[in-house]
Amino acid sequence: MIFLRCDYSEGAHPQILDALTATNMEQSVGYGEDPHCLHAAALIKERIARADADIHFFVGGTQTNYTSITAFLRPHEAVIAAARAHICVHETGAVEARGHKIITTPTTDAKLNPDDIDEVIRIHEDEHFVKPKMVFISDTTELGTIYNKAELQEIRKRCDKYGLYLYLDGARLASALTSPENDLTLQDIAQLTDAFYIGGTKNGALFGEALILLNPELKKEFRWIMKQTGSMLAKGRLLGVQFETLFQDNLYFELGQHANRMATMLREGIAAKGYRFITNSPSNQIFPIFPNELVAELEKSISFEKEGPVGTQEYCIRFVTSWATPEEDIQKVIDLL
Amino acid sequence: MIFLRCDYSEGAHPQILDALTATNMEQSVGYGEDPHCLHAAALIKERIARADADIHFFVGGTQTNYTSITAFLRPHEAVIAAARAHICVHETGAVEARGHKIITTPTTDAKLNPDDIDEVIRIHEDEHFVKPKMVFISDTTELGTIYNKAELQEIRKRCDKYGLYLYLDGARLASALTSPENDLTLQDIAQLTDAFYIGGTKNGALFGEALILLNPELKKEFRWIMKQTGSMLAKGRLLGVQFETLFQDNLYFELGQHANRMATMLREGIAAKGYRFITNSPSNQIFPIFPNELVAELEKSISFEKEGPVGTQEYCIRFVTSWATPEEDIQKVIDLL
Amino acid sequence: MIFLRCDYSEGAHPQILDALTATNMEQSVGYGEDPHCLHAAALIKERIARADADIHFFVGGTQTNYTSITAFLRPHEAVIAAARAHICVHETGAVEARGHKIITTPTTDAKLNPDDIDEVIRIHEDEHFVKPKMVFISDTTELGTIYNKAELQEIRKRCDKYGLYLYLDGARLASALTSPENDLTLQDIAQLTDAFYIGGTKNGALFGEALILLNPELKKEFRWIMKQTGSMLAKGRLLGVQFETLFQDNLYFELGQHANRMATMLREGIAAKGYRFITNSPSNQIFPIFPNELVAELEKSISFEKEGPVGTQEYCIRFVTSWATPEEDIQKVIDLL
Amino acid sequence: MIFLRCDYSEGAHPQILDALTATNMEQSVGYGEDPHCLHAAALIKERIARADADIHFFVGGTQTNYTSITAFLRPHEAVIAAARAHICVHETGAVEARGHKIITTPTTDAKLNPDDIDEVIRIHEDEHFVKPKMVFISDTTELGTIYNKAELQEIRKRCDKYGLYLYLDGARLASALTSPENDLTLQDIAQLTDAFYIGGTKNGALFGEALILLNPELKKEFRWIMKQTGSMLAKGRLLGVQFETLFQDNLYFELGQHANRMATMLREGIAAKGYRFITNSPSNQIFPIFPNELVAELEKSISFEKEGPVGTQEYCIRFVTSWATPEEDIQKVIDLL
Repeated sequence: MIFLRCDYSEGAHPQILDALTATNMEQSVGYGEDPHCLHAAALIKERIARADADIHFFVGGTQTNYTSITAFLRPHEAVIAAARAHICVHETGAVEARGHKIITTPTTDAKLNPDDIDEVIRIHEDEHFVKPKMVFISDTTELGTIYNKAELQEIRKRCDKYGLYLYLDGARLASALTSPENDLTLQDIAQLTDAFYIGGTKNGALFGEALILLNPELKKEFRWIMKQTGSMLAKGRLLGVQFETLFQDNLYFELGQHANRMATMLREGIAAKGYRFITNSPSNQIFPIFPNELVAELEKSISFEKEGPVGTQEYCIRFVTSWATPEEDIQKVIDLL
Repeated sequence: MIFLRCDYSEGAHPQILDALTATNMEQSVGYGEDPHCLHAAALIKERIARADADIHFFVGGTQTNYTSITAFLRPHEAVIAAARAHICVHETGAVEARGHKIITTPTTDAKLNPDDIDEVIRIHEDEHFVKPKMVFISDTTELGTIYNKAELQEIRKRCDKYGLYLYLDGARLASALTSPENDLTLQDIAQLTDAFYIGGTKNGALFGEALILLNPELKKEFRWIMKQTGSMLAKGRLLGVQFETLFQDNLYFELGQHANRMATMLREGIAAKGYRFITNSPSNQIFPIFPNELVAELEKSISFEKEGPVGTQEYCIRFVTSWATPEEDIQKVIDLL
Repeated sequence: MIFLRCDYSEGAHPQILDALTATNMEQSVGYGEDPHCLHAAALIKERIARADADIHFFVGGTQTNYTSITAFLRPHEAVIAAARAHICVHETGAVEARGHKIITTPTTDAKLNPDDIDEVIRIHEDEHFVKPKMVFISDTTELGTIYNKAELQEIRKRCDKYGLYLYLDGARLASALTSPENDLTLQDIAQLTDAFYIGGTKNGALFGEALILLNPELKKEFRWIMKQTGSMLAKGRLLGVQFETLFQDNLYFELGQHANRMATMLREGIAAKGYRFITNSPSNQIFPIFPNELVAELEKSISFEKEGPVGTQEYCIRFVTSWATPEEDIQKVIDLL
Repeated sequence: MIFLRCDYSEGAHPQILDALTATNMEQSVGYGEDPHCLHAAALIKERIARADADIHFFVGGTQTNYTSITAFLRPHEAVIAAARAHICVHETGAVEARGHKIITTPTTDAKLNPDDIDEVIRIHEDEHFVKPKMVFISDTTELGTIYNKAELQEIRKRCDKYGLYLYLDGARLASALTSPENDLTLQDIAQLTDAFYIGGTKNGALFGEALILLNPELKKEFRWIMKQTGSMLAKGRLLGVQFETLFQDNLYFELGQHANRMATMLREGIAAKGYRFITNSPSNQIFPIFPNELVAELEKSISFEKEGPVGTQEYCIRFVTSWATPEEDIQKVIDLL
């Protein structure tokens, strides 16, 4: 069975596993205050050129997203997000469970249209409505699309105009930043957002997301909220060791590049056979549309997710490549088509 | 200044005020367990032909809606509602503040399309999504439209199919049930829903909504949740006295009828001048579209709410009539046009 | 049956009912922005000599308390209160339901001991604990005791030392301020607290509490939170009219005085018969201890609440007097003993 | 520096690390539905002789506790726990943050006294109070004490009497069950509780707690709540692999035994020098009382937590041993005294 179901099917990249083994019997204080977490944070701060950032390590993305929103917003404040955003769909209402409404905007490619921010602000005019206070975007998005620099700057402009925080979910940031169509850098993101996270789980770590707090308003007593949501890992240094490994050289970006290269090969192979996609996604997730019978056939030897029907004769499916996807698997899939 | 801003601009209908005065120095236990509340509940149960119902009195609609949802649902369960529903828009996120996501469906007339329930169920397939468990509708809706019996039966059928509770917000139920286009009775609603409320605030009471719990699953320890949300009025008998007055004879329906008659007169007057409406609303809320200059002119002598622009030259506004609207006010408005 | 069960057994003082009747057909905007609410707020601001205060009117005390706490605190921040405080016991966990822990301190007379604040701060040392951020006190307390000025100043001093807000629940503030043992004024309270409320429900109004926000940090977008908790009364002017009546002359204090006079008469009558009390309460709530048989006898002709057993032979009960208690009722109770 | 600060200072026991390494490149579905999780669950079900149990794996204890409480209770329902319980003190109000009050009972040894359950039930009599619905205990407790079988049976009896769920926090269950004073088995616990968890983080795993749901009422849609609280690990099989290793032979108990043996050696060494303890704790946490100067001296070479002052001259500190504590470290500490 070829696995193109997700980018977290395996354990960790061998270098990460080696680092965990090498440090296994070290004794340290818990909860993220150990030397490895401090060192990993220092490496990231250097990489984003923001010595003033606060960095917190989480085990997973849902935790990171809702803990941040819980910490950032007052009870009547709401998030603006594209209707396909992960927090609106696939996190079982975690944000609402902590009290906050998500105001969704229409989208076909999972990207947030800056003009929709204006419209949301216009409608939410007084105390009978929630008060929009934060914009949530993902890069890559949930459909594998990416934001370019001009788009991110435009969203930032609206956030400044209306006093909104800008938060970027970087679960697949490695794939976004190494996409052939990308013109953003980690440093750009650290300049343009109030907070964002760098995803490890989907890029070679056993688990782990590094949340970067840039706006000083968002930093105060953040660890209290982390502990309250159960997000503070007892043996916190496991997160530190992993992010040290990802960022001491260029491993983080190399793993993203490999995933993208596999996806490009697959995308081009599929296109060459004449199939189309529901959106152009220059990253490690691609969404081809196949005839129903072909989908049934592919399921026999490939593990993947089904997105939804396109008319009655076709189905859109999702293929995801990862740091661990072997080139021969991609070739086999192309041959199958 | 003519008030067509809302149906709660005045105090109470004189009969209600008289009843409150007459009972003022009676001494009774608090929190809704006094003889007047019991009597009012008995009158309503008789009227809906459901001796088995539990009836609870609230001060306002937002309280009633979110207290009910809080009591009915588990943390991961969600509400399905049309995107224009009051709980999605004008209650400052009260439902989300108590932890529940509202899944919205598209609508132009504020009514819920039964087929959209199927689609919501199809998408929310496993534990990565919230679980739809309740359908919320309003009658009249937020755009003054009403459900007919066939529509309500169809929604009930989907609720039965998928194990969903059906809840009806009756803030303006008096206007709905006395609309010339209505074919529903209070008894029908008590047969087709799991819970609904009869609105008093917008139909002649100082304040007050009577929540009717029909499904036995929803009754357990409901008073605990009421107290927790601060919804239990200390001098609860004030609510009992008002609903006694509304339901001992036919006052509740007479007040709704008057409001509708005034709205019909106004609607016909506006239509006769050649203006159109954003939707057909056979109840006490109407939504005419006027040229911008006319809207500016009207604002000098009429108090009303502005719905939103229609293109660049016109604006949709809302006129609301009530039990207290004098016929001469309506005539004056028509003359002004 | 003589009612000494609570101070909200009747409707409203006749002057209040007259004012509601006189203004009944006035038309005004809703939600507390009408002329009566503005006037009532102006009268209170003058009385407390704090022109800078923000004043919001609520229907009931549980709403007022938890809405305030919800608005004031971040998710990890907690309230310090004496273990007998109303919010810890009789509000069905409303504060916790909105996410905040209440840290309780031991007490025999329901008053908060300032030294206990130091101890709470000492223990809650880092992010593994909630962070104390607000002190909650009631005056009169839940056992009818009162704070004197020196005590309130001492609590204020600790709040300043530790960066805590001081909030005073004044459900029975009329009784506290007119107690023979009181040395506090409304102006003192407005100087020493960050927020407090003046209770109307238990002092002659149909319902209503006036929340006074003094600390500018607590004022921002408070109306959003009010709406979210369902605390914004549609016909808000009902609250304005009642507080206008209570504060345009001296009615608020006269009603408190009457209740206290009745309680004093009753307390002295009971003491003269040789019975004792669980605490000294110089206000409108008294807590005598009677032999079990006497309690059973009294229940035949008096309605009252039972506090709890004292040993096996005696029981502590609660008598509450109010603005409406007739002197002859008190005489009858004394004669019964 | 000798580490006696906690039982999670190191990484994982070498067998666990080996198992993670051996399975690293396996590909599997995420979120706990992989073969390793299924196998680990099967091993535990066999060990507790409850084939009907549902087993869910969490990363940490705070998550496990509050996710369970969130899933089990309705909004007005509360937990009863001894005042020293971890959920009352060291979890930053996680339970309250999801809406539930914890009713605390007094305790000196961190154990819950069954009679206090009766008293709590007596007081919480109607809808003005939260409704007690669950009893929370820890074994070992937060002071290292343990429950014996008779005590657990007695608590169970009260729970049956009042319709309460019994939940046991087993963060240190390995130490409890291998304590020289213990007479409980895993099977006993699975018979006497409605739910409990077996802690891995403090007994040799990198991280991980296995929650066992026994009462069928508690099982429904539990995975929805897990996902909502961010508790579902993407690479869930990491938890499965670890619990497989702990339970395929006897590793789980051997590690607990080692920790206890080190603690016993240390306790006896301290007692032999004439020092006393604040409580008798026959497990891997001990709480000696030392003169202040000795505490200062010990801090130079040992890492430990300080519990609190005992009078002015002495201090109670906490020593924790673990699966990884070397015997020579214990000897060194004894020599230091």
